[in-house]
Amino acid sequence: MARGRFISLEGGEGAGKSTQLAALAEALRGRGLTVIVTREPGGSPGAEAIRKLLLEGEETRWNARAEALLFAAARSDHIEKTIQPALDRGEWVLSDRFLDSSLAYQGEAGGLGIEAVRDLHRFGSLDFLPDRTLVLTLDESEGALRARARDGHLGDRIGSRPPSYHAAVDAGFRAMAEKEPERVKLIDASGTPETVTARLLYALGDLLP
Amino acid sequence: MARGRFISLEGGEGAGKSTQLAALAEALRGRGLTVIVTREPGGSPGAEAIRKLLLEGEETRWNARAEALLFAAARSDHIEKTIQPALDRGEWVLSDRFLDSSLAYQGEAGGLGIEAVRDLHRFGSLDFLPDRTLVLTLDESEGALRARARDGHLGDRIGSRPPSYHAAVDAGFRAMAEKEPERVKLIDASGTPETVTARLLYALGDLLP
Repeated sequence: MARGRFISLEGGEGAGKSTQLAALAEALRGRGLTVIVTREPGGSPGAEAIRKLLLEGEETRWNARAEALLFAAARSDHIEKTIQPALDRGEWVLSDRFLDSSLAYQGEAGGLGIEAVRDLHRFGSLDFLPDRTLVLTLDESEGALRARARDGHLGDRIGSRPPSYHAAVDAGFRAMAEKEPERVKLIDASGTPETVTARLLYALGDLLP
Repeated sequence: MARGRFISLEGGEGAGKSTQLAALAEALRGRGLTVIVTREPGGSPGAEAIRKLLLEGEETRWNARAEALLFAAARSDHIEKTIQPALDRGEWVLSDRFLDSSLAYQGEAGGLGIEAVRDLHRFGSLDFLPDRTLVLTLDESEGALRARARDGHLGDRIGSRPPSYHAAVDAGFRAMAEKEPERVKLIDASGTPETVTARLLYALGDLLP
């Protein structure tokens, strides 16, 4: 039996990630693949318990370094208990966010440094990587981001951070795509949902059976 | 106001750490110092929540790497929220275990490597160290350890690991004392409790006001 494939879906706020995750899973199932959909932080009982610690409480509950360590611990558990076993069964795994979110949000936008956060992943998960990482990107000005935030699409704790923060997240994803062009692909998230799903599938073409 | 001092108390199972922690705190208070006693993992609300995750559940709940990341996250929070503020107020802080337990238990005995675990502390807490670390040591054979385990003094999840594990923990503490002789002192834990407390106080002589 062929080993399954591990695909992570990434992107800033409001790029349609949830919609595309469901559509991509459906499309892959339509090709006869067994697909499990998971998420970060979380995706295994231990990692979901850590997710609860990360999302509960005040903005200042965790300092940035403790938060990055918690994400790395959750990811280690997620891989061991959920992702690797599924791949060993020959299944495809789609994850709503993975390592590159930590690199973009905590490493680049949060100021800890992409390499320092990557080192935590090397320690915690022996640098286990997706077969492909698809980053939904919207080309927009800071003004457009601000307007979208004002309209309430960016309602949660992280979404409500200033436009400069989200611009840095975006820069972090672009840096990863430049650094690892085989693994990390930027996908234009403009147009109809069907158009975007078609772009995602196209970017997986070489991995499909 | 003088900055307080941060002292960690370490040691393998059955060396009388809890008794000595209380006795040392009393002795320091008797010298007019304000002393807070804390512990690892834990010592702050966030770190105590992580402690709960670490101690609950099955032995296999966390892999060794995820566990080390959780300890490092808890320590980062413990320093930020509890230890550093107390030192800034001029208080003395006594901690029941700290970094050197992670180095000895997870780094040396757990096979992750002392340097790798130290790197997590460099990331999470910018290598914040105690002013002094006192390691209670009992010079005993593997057979004696085994007998003590059989008598039930080593009852908990970690205590019940084989004598070879506890010998490795001991080797880890000794390695730290060789590497950082100014900070880490091995204290003979044999004799009456009063004798041991006197040895601990003597090893803090240069730090006392």
